[in-house]
Amino acid sequence: MHLGLIGLGIMGAPMARNLLKAGFPLTVATRTPGKAARFASEASSLGSVEAVETPSELASACDVVITMVTDSPDVVQVARGPSGIFAGARPKTVIIDMSTISPQITRDLAEEAASHGLQWLDAPVSGGQKGAIEGTLTIMVGGDAGALDRCRPVLAAMGKRISHFGPPGSGQSAKLCNQIMTAINLLSVCEAMVFGKKAGLDLGTLHEALTGGAANSWALEVLGKKMIERDFAPAFMVRLQQKDLRLVLDAASANRTPLPGAAMVHQLLAALEAEGHGDDGTQALVRLFERLAGL
Amino acid sequence: MHLGLIGLGIMGAPMARNLLKAGFPLTVATRTPGKAARFASEASSLGSVEAVETPSELASACDVVITMVTDSPDVVQVARGPSGIFAGARPKTVIIDMSTISPQITRDLAEEAASHGLQWLDAPVSGGQKGAIEGTLTIMVGGDAGALDRCRPVLAAMGKRISHFGPPGSGQSAKLCNQIMTAINLLSVCEAMVFGKKAGLDLGTLHEALTGGAANSWALEVLGKKMIERDFAPAFMVRLQQKDLRLVLDAASANRTPLPGAAMVHQLLAALEAEGHGDDGTQALVRLFERLAGL
Repeated sequence: MHLGLIGLGIMGAPMARNLLKAGFPLTVATRTPGKAARFASEASSLGSVEAVETPSELASACDVVITMVTDSPDVVQVARGPSGIFAGARPKTVIIDMSTISPQITRDLAEEAASHGLQWLDAPVSGGQKGAIEGTLTIMVGGDAGALDRCRPVLAAMGKRISHFGPPGSGQSAKLCNQIMTAINLLSVCEAMVFGKKAGLDLGTLHEALTGGAANSWALEVLGKKMIERDFAPAFMVRLQQKDLRLVLDAASANRTPLPGAAMVHQLLAALEAEGHGDDGTQALVRLFERLAGL
Repeated sequence: MHLGLIGLGIMGAPMARNLLKAGFPLTVATRTPGKAARFASEASSLGSVEAVETPSELASACDVVITMVTDSPDVVQVARGPSGIFAGARPKTVIIDMSTISPQITRDLAEEAASHGLQWLDAPVSGGQKGAIEGTLTIMVGGDAGALDRCRPVLAAMGKRISHFGPPGSGQSAKLCNQIMTAINLLSVCEAMVFGKKAGLDLGTLHEALTGGAANSWALEVLGKKMIERDFAPAFMVRLQQKDLRLVLDAASANRTPLPGAAMVHQLLAALEAEGHGDDGTQALVRLFERLAGL
Protein backbone atom coordinates (compact mmCIF):
# COMPACT_ATOMS: atom_id res chain seq x y z
CA MET A 1 0.00 0.00 0.00
CA HIS A 2 1.65 3.22 -1.17
CA LEU A 3 0.90 6.20 1.09
CA GLY A 4 0.98 9.94 0.54
CA LEU A 5 1.11 12.57 3.24
CA ILE A 6 0.49 16.29 2.75
CA GLY A 7 1.60 18.60 5.60
CA LEU A 8 4.84 18.11 7.54
CA GLY A 9 4.34 20.44 10.50
CA ILE A 10 4.69 19.78 14.21
CA MET A 11 2.23 16.85 13.88
CA GLY A 12 2.64 15.69 10.27
CA ALA A 13 6.43 15.17 10.36
CA PRO A 14 6.50 12.73 13.31
CA MET A 15 3.44 10.93 11.91
CA ALA A 16 5.28 10.51 8.58
CA ARG A 17 8.29 9.05 10.40
CA ASN A 18 6.05 6.51 12.15
CA LEU A 19 4.54 5.48 8.79
CA LEU A 20 8.04 4.91 7.39
CA LYS A 21 9.07 2.94 10.50
CA ALA A 22 6.01 0.73 9.97
CA GLY A 23 7.33 -0.09 6.49
CA PHE A 24 4.95 1.88 4.26
CA PRO A 25 6.46 3.46 1.10
CA LEU A 26 5.64 7.16 1.39
CA THR A 27 5.35 10.17 -0.91
CA VAL A 28 5.26 13.58 0.76
CA ALA A 29 4.27 17.09 -0.32
CA THR A 30 4.00 20.44 1.43
CA ARG A 31 2.64 23.83 0.45
CA THR A 32 5.89 25.44 1.64
CA PRO A 33 8.33 24.92 -1.28
CA GLY A 34 11.36 22.77 -0.43
CA LYS A 35 10.06 21.51 2.92
CA ALA A 36 8.99 18.12 1.54
CA ALA A 37 12.34 17.57 -0.22
CA ARG A 38 14.24 18.38 2.99
CA PHE A 39 12.08 15.93 4.94
CA ALA A 40 12.57 13.17 2.32
CA SER A 41 16.32 13.65 2.51
CA GLU A 42 16.41 13.64 6.32
CA ALA A 43 14.07 10.65 6.68
CA SER A 44 15.55 8.48 3.91
CA SER A 45 17.24 6.19 6.44
CA LEU A 46 13.83 5.24 7.88
CA GLY A 47 12.39 3.80 4.66
CA SER A 48 11.27 4.52 1.10
CA VAL A 49 10.33 8.21 0.93
CA GLU A 50 10.15 10.68 -1.95
CA ALA A 51 8.98 14.27 -2.28
CA VAL A 52 6.78 15.72 -5.02
CA GLU A 53 5.60 19.25 -5.78
CA THR A 54 1.80 19.12 -5.82
CA PRO A 55 -1.10 17.27 -4.17
CA SER A 56 -2.31 16.03 -7.58
CA GLU A 57 1.10 14.58 -8.42
CA LEU A 58 1.21 12.93 -4.98
CA ALA A 59 -2.29 11.51 -5.28
CA SER A 60 -1.59 9.97 -8.71
CA ALA A 61 1.10 7.75 -7.09
CA CYS A 62 -0.81 6.68 -3.94
CA ASP A 63 -3.49 4.27 -2.68
CA VAL A 64 -4.09 6.29 0.47
CA VAL A 65 -3.58 10.05 0.83
CA ILE A 66 -3.28 11.58 4.32
CA THR A 67 -3.72 15.32 4.90
CA MET A 68 -2.46 16.99 8.10
CA VAL A 69 -2.79 20.75 7.68
CA THR A 70 -4.14 23.54 9.90
CA ASP A 71 -7.68 24.58 9.06
CA SER A 72 -10.68 24.05 6.76
CA PRO A 73 -9.43 26.38 3.95
CA ASP A 74 -6.07 24.54 3.93
CA VAL A 75 -7.78 21.18 3.40
CA VAL A 76 -10.02 22.65 0.70
CA GLN A 77 -6.93 24.09 -1.00
CA VAL A 78 -5.05 20.79 -1.14
CA ALA A 79 -8.16 18.82 -2.15
CA ARG A 80 -9.68 20.99 -4.88
CA GLY A 81 -8.40 22.79 -7.97
CA PRO A 82 -6.19 21.78 -10.91
CA SER A 83 -3.25 20.71 -8.73
CA GLY A 84 -5.39 19.27 -5.89
CA ILE A 85 -5.86 15.68 -4.70
CA PHE A 86 -9.18 15.21 -6.51
CA ALA A 87 -7.54 16.14 -9.84
CA GLY A 88 -4.81 13.49 -9.54
CA ALA A 89 -6.23 10.60 -7.54
CA ARG A 90 -7.03 7.25 -9.13
CA PRO A 91 -10.50 5.78 -8.47
CA LYS A 92 -10.91 4.05 -5.07
CA THR A 93 -8.14 6.08 -3.48
CA VAL A 94 -8.91 6.73 0.21
CA ILE A 95 -8.24 10.25 1.49
CA ILE A 96 -7.74 10.44 5.28
CA ASP A 97 -7.98 13.99 6.56
CA MET A 98 -6.36 14.06 10.01
CA SER A 99 -6.53 17.86 10.33
CA THR A 100 -9.10 19.40 12.70
CA ILE A 101 -11.63 21.20 10.48
CA SER A 102 -15.33 21.96 10.14
CA PRO A 103 -17.71 18.94 10.22
CA GLN A 104 -19.88 20.66 7.58
CA ILE A 105 -16.97 21.28 5.17
CA THR A 106 -15.92 17.68 5.78
CA ARG A 107 -19.37 16.48 4.67
CA ASP A 108 -19.09 18.64 1.54
CA LEU A 109 -15.62 17.33 0.70
CA ALA A 110 -16.67 13.71 1.32
CA GLU A 111 -19.55 14.15 -1.12
CA GLU A 112 -17.27 15.72 -3.70
CA ALA A 113 -14.75 12.89 -3.23
CA ALA A 114 -17.50 10.33 -3.84
CA SER A 115 -18.44 12.10 -7.09
CA HIS A 116 -14.83 11.45 -8.24
CA GLY A 117 -15.04 7.77 -7.19
CA LEU A 118 -12.86 8.45 -4.15
CA GLN A 119 -13.44 7.79 -0.44
CA TRP A 120 -13.04 10.36 2.33
CA LEU A 121 -12.35 9.59 5.98
CA ASP A 122 -12.16 12.35 8.58
CA ALA A 123 -9.74 11.18 11.25
CA PRO A 124 -8.65 14.06 13.52
CA VAL A 125 -6.42 13.21 16.46
CA SER A 126 -5.87 14.00 20.11
CA GLY A 127 -2.60 13.58 21.97
CA GLY A 128 -0.51 16.46 20.65
CA GLN A 129 3.07 16.46 19.45
CA LYS A 130 4.03 13.92 22.13
CA GLY A 131 1.36 11.48 20.92
CA ALA A 132 2.41 12.04 17.30
CA ILE A 133 6.07 11.27 18.10
CA GLU A 134 5.28 8.23 20.24
CA GLY A 135 2.58 6.90 17.90
CA THR A 136 -0.01 6.98 20.69
CA LEU A 137 -2.58 9.37 19.21
CA THR A 138 -6.29 8.92 19.81
CA ILE A 139 -7.93 8.92 16.35
CA MET A 140 -11.62 9.84 15.90
CA VAL A 141 -12.94 8.58 12.58
CA GLY A 142 -15.95 9.44 10.44
CA GLY A 143 -16.77 7.87 7.06
CA ASP A 144 -17.23 4.47 5.44
CA ALA A 145 -16.52 1.51 7.77
CA GLY A 146 -15.04 -0.58 4.92
CA ALA A 147 -12.60 2.17 3.98
CA LEU A 148 -11.64 2.49 7.64
CA ASP A 149 -11.01 -1.25 7.91
CA ARG A 150 -8.67 -1.16 4.88
CA CYS A 151 -6.80 1.79 6.44
CA ARG A 152 -6.57 0.43 9.99
CA PRO A 153 -2.93 -0.72 9.62
CA VAL A 154 -2.05 2.81 8.46
CA LEU A 155 -3.80 4.47 11.42
CA ALA A 156 -2.37 1.90 13.85
CA ALA A 157 1.13 3.07 12.88
CA MET A 158 0.25 6.53 14.25
CA GLY A 159 -2.26 5.97 17.04
CA LYS A 160 -3.37 3.65 19.80
CA ARG A 161 -7.10 4.25 20.26
CA ILE A 162 -9.07 4.30 16.98
CA SER A 163 -12.79 5.09 17.38
CA HIS A 164 -15.32 4.99 14.52
CA PHE A 165 -18.22 7.40 15.04
CA GLY A 166 -20.27 7.00 11.86
CA PRO A 167 -20.86 9.10 8.74
CA PRO A 168 -18.48 11.74 7.29
CA GLY A 169 -17.96 14.63 9.71
CA SER A 170 -18.65 12.59 12.83
CA GLY A 171 -14.92 12.21 13.56
CA GLN A 172 -14.59 15.99 13.40
CA SER A 173 -17.62 16.40 15.71
CA ALA A 174 -15.97 14.08 18.24
CA LYS A 175 -12.73 16.04 18.00
CA LEU A 176 -14.65 19.26 18.69
CA CYS A 177 -16.08 17.63 21.87
CA ASN A 178 -12.46 16.97 22.83
CA GLN A 179 -11.59 20.63 22.21
CA ILE A 180 -14.57 21.88 24.25
CA MET A 181 -13.22 19.88 27.17
CA THR A 182 -9.56 20.87 26.81
CA ALA A 183 -10.63 24.54 26.73
CA ILE A 184 -12.91 24.41 29.78
CA ASN A 185 -10.55 22.16 31.77
CA LEU A 186 -7.85 24.79 31.14
CA LEU A 187 -10.17 27.45 32.62
CA SER A 188 -10.69 25.20 35.64
CA VAL A 189 -6.94 24.96 36.34
CA CYS A 190 -6.43 28.74 35.88
CA GLU A 191 -9.16 29.65 38.38
CA ALA A 192 -7.94 27.17 41.01
CA MET A 193 -4.32 28.33 40.59
CA VAL A 194 -5.09 32.03 40.89
CA PHE A 195 -7.45 31.47 43.86
CA GLY A 196 -4.74 29.42 45.57
CA LYS A 197 -2.04 31.98 44.84
CA LYS A 198 -4.14 34.85 46.21
CA ALA A 199 -4.88 32.75 49.32
CA GLY A 200 -1.12 32.34 49.85
CA LEU A 201 -0.97 28.59 49.22
CA ASP A 202 2.16 26.82 48.03
CA LEU A 203 1.17 25.83 44.50
CA GLY A 204 3.35 22.72 44.38
CA THR A 205 1.62 21.36 47.50
CA LEU A 206 -1.73 22.34 46.01
CA HIS A 207 -0.95 20.53 42.74
CA GLU A 208 0.02 17.38 44.63
CA ALA A 209 -3.16 17.44 46.72
CA LEU A 210 -5.57 18.21 43.86
CA THR A 211 -4.21 15.59 41.46
CA GLY A 212 -5.09 12.96 44.07
CA GLY A 213 -8.85 13.38 43.94
CA ALA A 214 -12.04 14.40 42.18
CA ALA A 215 -10.52 17.64 40.83
CA ASN A 216 -7.94 15.87 38.71
CA SER A 217 -7.61 16.21 34.95
CA TRP A 218 -4.99 15.91 32.22
CA ALA A 219 -5.04 19.73 32.17
CA LEU A 220 -4.18 19.92 35.88
CA GLU A 221 -1.45 17.32 35.64
CA VAL A 222 0.25 18.70 32.51
CA LEU A 223 -0.73 22.37 32.12
CA GLY A 224 -1.02 23.04 35.88
CA LYS A 225 2.56 21.82 36.31
CA LYS A 226 3.76 24.13 33.52
CA MET A 227 1.93 27.10 35.10
CA ILE A 228 3.75 26.45 38.41
CA GLU A 229 7.09 26.13 36.61
CA ARG A 230 6.31 29.35 34.64
CA ASP A 231 6.83 27.41 31.39
CA PHE A 232 4.68 29.10 28.75
CA ALA A 233 6.33 27.53 25.69
CA PRO A 234 3.77 26.18 23.24
CA ALA A 235 2.85 22.52 23.17
CA PHE A 236 -0.57 23.68 21.92
CA MET A 237 -0.67 27.33 20.86
CA VAL A 238 -3.37 29.78 21.99
CA ARG A 239 -4.14 30.69 18.36
CA LEU A 240 -4.76 27.03 17.46
CA GLN A 241 -7.02 26.53 20.47
CA GLN A 242 -8.87 29.64 19.22
CA LYS A 243 -9.16 28.20 15.71
CA ASP A 244 -10.68 25.04 17.20
CA LEU A 245 -13.05 27.02 19.44
CA ARG A 246 -14.24 28.93 16.35
CA LEU A 247 -15.03 25.56 14.73
CA VAL A 248 -16.80 24.50 17.95
CA LEU A 249 -18.91 27.65 18.21
CA ASP A 250 -19.80 27.68 14.49
CA ALA A 251 -20.95 24.05 14.63
CA ALA A 252 -22.78 24.68 17.93
CA SER A 253 -24.53 27.69 16.43
CA ALA A 254 -25.62 25.67 13.40
CA ASN A 255 -26.91 22.93 15.75
CA ARG A 256 -28.54 25.36 18.24
CA THR A 257 -26.36 24.14 21.13
CA PRO A 258 -25.62 26.80 23.78
CA LEU A 259 -22.06 26.41 25.11
CA PRO A 260 -21.55 29.20 27.66
CA GLY A 261 -18.31 27.74 29.04
CA ALA A 262 -16.58 27.19 25.69
CA ALA A 263 -17.72 30.65 24.54
CA MET A 264 -16.29 32.28 27.67
CA VAL A 265 -12.91 30.58 27.29
CA HIS A 266 -12.85 31.76 23.65
CA GLN A 267 -13.39 35.35 24.82
CA LEU A 268 -10.73 35.12 27.55
CA LEU A 269 -8.20 33.66 25.10
CA ALA A 270 -9.04 36.55 22.75
CA ALA A 271 -7.81 38.92 25.48
CA LEU A 272 -4.60 36.91 25.69
CA GLU A 273 -4.19 37.16 21.91
CA ALA A 274 -4.85 40.91 22.05
CA GLU A 275 -1.91 41.18 24.45
CA GLY A 276 0.30 39.48 21.86
CA HIS A 277 0.38 35.99 23.40
CA GLY A 278 -1.23 34.03 20.54
CA ASP A 279 1.91 31.94 20.02
CA ASP A 280 2.24 30.99 23.71
CA GLY A 281 1.03 27.64 24.99
CA THR A 282 -2.58 27.63 26.20
CA GLN A 283 -1.36 27.41 29.83
CA ALA A 284 -0.43 31.12 29.46
CA LEU A 285 -4.13 31.83 30.19
CA VAL A 286 -3.17 31.74 33.87
CA ARG A 287 -1.17 34.94 33.34
CA LEU A 288 -4.33 36.75 32.21
CA PHE A 289 -6.09 35.56 35.38
CA GLU A 290 -3.15 36.72 37.48
CA ARG A 291 -3.37 40.19 35.93
CA LEU A 292 -7.16 40.25 36.43
CA ALA A 293 -6.57 39.42 40.11
CA GLY A 294 -3.92 42.12 40.52
CA LEU A 295 -1.01 39.69 40.90
CA MET B 1 -5.19 8.60 72.44
CA HIS B 2 -8.93 8.94 73.05
CA LEU B 3 -10.82 10.38 70.06
CA GLY B 4 -14.13 12.14 69.73
CA LEU B 5 -16.12 12.59 66.53
CA ILE B 6 -19.08 14.91 66.06
CA GLY B 7 -21.20 14.35 62.93
CA LEU B 8 -22.14 10.87 61.64
CA GLY B 9 -23.49 11.65 58.18
CA ILE B 10 -22.59 10.17 54.79
CA MET B 11 -18.89 11.04 55.45
CA GLY B 12 -18.59 11.01 59.25
CA ALA B 13 -20.00 7.51 59.83
CA PRO B 14 -17.54 5.62 57.57
CA MET B 15 -14.67 7.78 58.90
CA ALA B 16 -15.67 6.81 62.46
CA ARG B 17 -15.65 3.13 61.48
CA ASN B 18 -12.12 3.47 60.08
CA LEU B 19 -10.94 5.10 63.34
CA LEU B 20 -12.37 2.17 65.31
CA LYS B 21 -10.76 -0.35 62.94
CA ALA B 22 -7.42 1.41 63.52
CA GLY B 23 -7.81 0.73 67.25
CA PHE B 24 -8.67 4.18 68.60
CA PRO B 25 -11.19 4.37 71.47
CA LEU B 26 -13.94 6.67 70.23
CA THR B 27 -16.70 8.85 71.69
CA VAL B 28 -19.36 10.07 69.27
CA ALA B 29 -22.02 12.78 69.36
CA THR B 30 -24.54 14.12 66.85
CA ARG B 31 -26.89 17.06 66.79
CA THR B 32 -29.74 14.71 65.75
CA PRO B 33 -30.89 13.07 69.03
CA GLY B 34 -30.43 9.29 69.16
CA LYS B 35 -28.23 9.04 66.04
CA ALA B 36 -24.97 8.75 68.01
CA ALA B 37 -26.40 6.05 70.31
CA ARG B 38 -27.61 4.02 67.31
CA PHE B 39 -24.16 4.30 65.68
CA ALA B 40 -22.39 3.24 68.93
CA SER B 41 -24.64 0.19 69.18
CA GLU B 42 -24.16 -0.82 65.52
CA ALA B 43 -20.37 -0.23 65.54
CA SER B 44 -19.62 -1.83 68.93
CA SER B 45 -18.13 -4.93 67.27
CA LEU B 46 -15.44 -2.77 65.62
CA GLY B 47 -13.92 -1.41 68.83
CA SER B 48 -14.48 0.71 71.93
CA VAL B 49 -17.21 3.25 71.11
CA GLU B 50 -19.63 5.20 73.27
CA ALA B 51 -22.18 7.92 72.57
CA VAL B 52 -22.71 11.12 74.55
CA GLU B 53 -25.27 13.91 74.30
CA THR B 54 -23.29 17.12 73.82
CA PRO B 55 -20.04 18.37 72.25
CA SER B 56 -18.85 19.67 75.66
CA GLU B 57 -19.39 16.28 77.30
CA LEU B 58 -17.58 14.62 74.39
CA ALA B 59 -14.66 17.06 74.48
CA SER B 60 -14.13 16.56 78.24
CA ALA B 61 -13.34 12.87 77.60
CA CYS B 62 -11.07 13.26 74.54
CA ASP B 63 -7.51 14.16 73.51
CA VAL B 64 -8.52 14.85 69.91
CA VAL B 65 -11.96 16.03 68.76
CA ILE B 66 -12.95 15.65 65.08
CA THR B 67 -15.87 17.58 63.60
CA MET B 68 -17.51 16.49 60.32
CA VAL B 69 -20.64 18.59 59.78
CA THR B 70 -22.08 20.50 56.82
CA ASP B 71 -21.32 24.20 56.87
CA SER B 72 -19.71 27.08 58.78
CA PRO B 73 -22.72 27.73 61.10
CA ASP B 74 -22.78 24.02 62.03
CA VAL B 75 -19.12 24.07 63.08
CA VAL B 76 -19.64 27.32 65.01
CA GLN B 77 -22.63 25.73 66.77
CA VAL B 78 -20.73 22.64 67.95
CA ALA B 79 -17.63 24.66 68.94
CA ARG B 80 -19.14 27.62 70.85
CA GLY B 81 -21.71 28.07 73.58
CA PRO B 82 -22.33 26.42 76.97
CA SER B 83 -22.56 22.88 75.54
CA GLY B 84 -19.89 23.37 72.83
CA ILE B 85 -16.42 21.87 72.45
CA PHE B 86 -14.62 24.94 73.81
CA ALA B 87 -16.66 24.74 77.06
CA GLY B 88 -15.71 21.12 77.79
CA ALA B 89 -12.26 20.56 76.30
CA ARG B 90 -9.19 20.09 78.52
CA PRO B 91 -6.13 22.26 77.73
CA LYS B 92 -3.98 21.01 74.80
CA THR B 93 -6.88 19.17 73.18
CA VAL B 94 -6.57 19.24 69.37
CA ILE B 95 -9.75 19.97 67.42
CA ILE B 96 -9.65 18.72 63.81
CA ASP B 97 -12.42 20.24 61.69
CA MET B 98 -12.80 18.06 58.60
CA SER B 99 -15.96 19.85 57.38
CA THR B 100 -15.70 22.19 54.37
CA ILE B 101 -16.29 25.70 55.73
CA SER B 102 -15.16 29.32 55.36
CA PRO B 103 -11.39 29.97 55.63
CA GLN B 104 -12.15 33.24 57.48
CA ILE B 105 -14.44 31.60 60.05
CA THR B 106 -11.78 28.91 60.44
CA ARG B 107 -9.20 31.59 61.31
CA ASP B 108 -11.62 33.09 63.86
CA LEU B 109 -12.32 29.69 65.47
CA ALA B 110 -8.61 28.82 65.56
CA GLU B 111 -7.89 32.09 67.40
CA GLU B 112 -10.72 31.45 69.83
CA ALA B 113 -9.45 27.88 70.41
CA ALA B 114 -5.98 29.23 71.19
CA SER B 115 -7.47 31.63 73.79
CA HIS B 116 -8.85 28.52 75.56
CA GLY B 117 -5.45 26.77 75.41
CA LEU B 118 -6.68 24.46 72.60
CA GLN B 119 -5.33 23.77 69.10
CA TRP B 120 -7.37 23.93 65.90
CA LEU B 121 -6.55 22.13 62.66
CA ASP B 122 -8.66 22.61 59.55
CA ALA B 123 -8.50 19.35 57.58
CA PRO B 124 -11.19 19.18 54.89
CA VAL B 125 -11.18 16.19 52.59
CA SER B 126 -11.63 15.20 48.95
CA GLY B 127 -12.63 11.78 47.71
CA GLY B 128 -16.32 11.61 48.63
CA GLN B 129 -18.24 8.81 50.30
CA LYS B 130 -16.15 6.19 48.45
CA GLY B 131 -12.91 7.68 49.79
CA ALA B 132 -14.41 7.88 53.29
CA ILE B 133 -15.43 4.21 53.24
CA GLU B 134 -12.13 3.01 51.78
CA GLY B 135 -9.97 5.27 53.96
CA THR B 136 -8.39 6.86 50.87
CA LEU B 137 -9.39 10.50 51.38
CA THR B 138 -7.10 13.35 50.37
CA ILE B 139 -6.75 15.57 53.47
CA MET B 140 -5.79 19.26 53.16
CA VAL B 141 -4.50 20.61 56.48
CA GLY B 142 -4.05 24.09 57.88
CA GLY B 143 -2.75 24.88 61.39
CA ASP B 144 0.18 24.13 63.68
CA ALA B 145 2.69 21.62 62.25
CA GLY B 146 3.38 20.08 65.67
CA ALA B 147 -0.31 19.46 66.29
CA LEU B 148 -0.58 17.91 62.82
CA ASP B 149 2.37 15.60 63.54
CA ARG B 150 0.73 14.36 66.75
CA CYS B 151 -2.52 13.73 64.83
CA ARG B 152 -0.98 12.07 61.75
CA PRO B 153 -1.83 8.50 62.90
CA VAL B 154 -5.45 9.63 63.33
CA LEU B 155 -5.63 11.17 59.85
CA ALA B 156 -3.79 8.21 58.30
CA ALA B 157 -6.65 5.97 59.46
CA MET B 158 -9.02 7.96 57.22
CA GLY B 159 -6.91 9.20 54.28
CA LYS B 160 -3.99 8.46 52.02
CA ARG B 161 -2.62 11.82 50.92
CA ILE B 162 -2.13 14.30 53.78
CA SER B 163 -0.93 17.77 52.68
CA HIS B 164 0.01 20.56 55.09
CA PHE B 165 -0.57 24.01 53.63
CA GLY B 166 0.37 26.34 56.49
CA PRO B 167 -1.58 28.55 58.92
CA PRO B 168 -5.21 28.05 60.03
CA GLY B 169 -7.64 28.36 57.10
CA SER B 170 -5.12 27.26 54.47
CA GLY B 171 -6.50 23.72 54.39
CA GLN B 172 -9.96 25.21 53.72
CA SER B 173 -8.52 27.44 50.97
CA ALA B 174 -6.98 24.37 49.30
CA LYS B 175 -10.30 22.54 49.52
CA LEU B 176 -12.02 25.48 47.85
CA CYS B 177 -9.50 25.23 44.97
CA ASN B 178 -10.58 21.59 44.71
CA GLN B 179 -14.24 22.64 44.58
CA ILE B 180 -13.57 25.29 41.90
CA MET B 181 -12.11 22.54 39.75
CA THR B 182 -14.81 19.94 40.36
CA ALA B 183 -17.46 22.55 39.44
CA ILE B 184 -15.80 23.72 36.21
CA ASN B 185 -14.76 20.21 35.16
CA LEU B 186 -18.42 19.24 35.51
CA LEU B 187 -19.38 22.10 33.15
CA SER B 188 -16.78 20.82 30.70
CA VAL B 189 -18.30 17.33 30.59
CA CYS B 190 -21.86 18.71 30.23
CA GLU B 191 -20.97 20.89 27.22
CA ALA B 192 -19.07 18.10 25.45
CA MET B 193 -21.89 15.62 26.07
CA VAL B 194 -24.66 17.89 24.80
CA PHE B 195 -22.61 18.97 21.76
CA GLY B 196 -21.92 15.31 20.98
CA LYS B 197 -25.56 14.33 21.45
CA LYS B 198 -26.82 17.11 19.16
CA ALA B 199 -24.21 16.06 16.56
CA GLY B 200 -25.62 12.53 16.65
CA LEU B 201 -22.56 10.85 18.16
CA ASP B 202 -22.75 7.63 20.14
CA LEU B 203 -21.91 8.85 23.65
CA GLY B 204 -20.32 5.59 24.79
CA THR B 205 -17.87 5.72 21.87
CA LEU B 206 -17.27 9.41 22.62
CA HIS B 207 -16.55 8.67 26.28
CA GLU B 208 -14.07 5.96 25.34
CA ALA B 209 -12.24 8.25 22.87
CA LEU B 210 -12.13 11.33 25.12
CA THR B 211 -10.89 9.51 28.23
CA GLY B 212 -7.82 8.47 26.22
CA GLY B 213 -6.33 11.94 25.73
CA ALA B 214 -5.90 15.56 26.74
CA ALA B 215 -9.63 16.02 27.48
CA ASN B 216 -9.67 13.50 30.29
CA SER B 217 -10.65 14.25 33.89
CA TRP B 218 -12.03 12.50 36.95
CA ALA B 219 -15.31 14.30 36.10
CA LEU B 220 -15.38 12.77 32.59
CA GLU B 221 -14.53 9.30 33.82
CA VAL B 222 -16.98 9.19 36.73
CA LEU B 223 -19.72 11.79 36.11
CA GLY B 224 -19.64 11.47 32.30
CA LYS B 225 -20.27 7.74 32.67
CA LYS B 226 -23.23 8.40 34.98
CA MET B 227 -24.66 10.95 32.51
CA ILE B 228 -24.55 8.33 29.73
CA GLU B 229 -26.17 5.73 32.00
CA ARG B 230 -28.82 8.32 33.04
CA ASP B 231 -27.86 7.75 36.69
CA PHE B 232 -28.61 10.98 38.53
CA ALA B 233 -28.51 9.56 42.08
CA PRO B 234 -26.42 11.72 44.39
CA ALA B 235 -22.83 10.89 45.20
CA PHE B 236 -22.32 14.64 45.67
CA MET B 237 -25.56 16.63 45.82
CA VAL B 238 -26.18 19.79 43.79
CA ARG B 239 -27.07 21.72 46.97
CA LEU B 240 -23.74 20.79 48.60
CA GLN B 241 -21.79 21.82 45.51
CA GLN B 242 -23.74 25.10 45.73
CA LYS B 243 -22.84 25.52 49.41
CA ASP B 244 -19.16 25.04 48.50
CA LEU B 245 -19.39 27.47 45.55
CA ARG B 246 -20.86 30.08 47.90
CA LEU B 247 -17.80 29.60 50.15
CA VAL B 248 -15.58 29.88 47.05
CA LEU B 249 -17.22 33.06 45.78
CA ASP B 250 -17.32 34.71 49.22
CA ALA B 251 -13.61 34.03 49.76
CA ALA B 252 -12.80 35.12 46.19
CA SER B 253 -14.74 38.34 46.68
CA ALA B 254 -12.86 39.07 49.93
CA ASN B 255 -9.57 38.37 48.12
CA ARG B 256 -10.49 40.29 44.94
CA THR B 257 -10.13 37.20 42.74
CA PRO B 258 -12.41 37.13 39.68
CA LEU B 259 -13.65 33.59 38.98
CA PRO B 260 -15.96 33.82 35.95
CA GLY B 261 -16.12 30.05 35.40
CA ALA B 262 -16.94 29.11 39.00
CA ALA B 263 -19.52 31.92 39.14
CA MET B 264 -21.20 30.69 35.95
CA VAL B 265 -21.45 27.11 37.19
CA HIS B 266 -22.99 28.45 40.42
CA GLN B 267 -25.66 30.27 38.37
CA LEU B 268 -26.38 27.24 36.18
CA LEU B 269 -26.71 24.97 39.22
CA ALA B 270 -29.10 27.57 40.69
CA ALA B 271 -31.36 26.94 37.68
CA LEU B 272 -31.19 23.21 38.38
CA GLU B 273 -32.12 23.87 42.04
CA ALA B 274 -35.00 26.10 40.93
CA GLU B 275 -36.36 23.15 38.96
CA GLY B 276 -36.35 21.07 42.15
CA HIS B 277 -33.16 19.05 41.50
CA GLY B 278 -31.07 20.22 44.48
CA ASP B 279 -30.90 16.70 45.91
CA ASP B 280 -29.73 15.11 42.64
CA GLY B 281 -26.08 14.33 42.01
CA THR B 282 -24.15 17.15 40.34
CA GLN B 283 -24.05 15.15 37.08
CA ALA B 284 -27.74 16.13 36.67
CA LEU B 285 -26.44 19.46 35.31
CA VAL B 286 -26.32 17.74 31.91
CA ARG B 287 -30.13 17.60 31.94
CA LEU B 288 -30.29 21.40 32.19
CA PHE B 289 -27.96 21.63 29.17
CA GLU B 290 -30.12 19.15 27.28
CA ARG B 291 -33.21 21.27 27.92
CA LEU B 292 -31.33 24.44 26.90
CA ALA B 293 -30.39 22.69 23.64
CA GLY B 294 -33.95 21.57 22.97
CA LEU B 295 -33.24 17.86 23.59
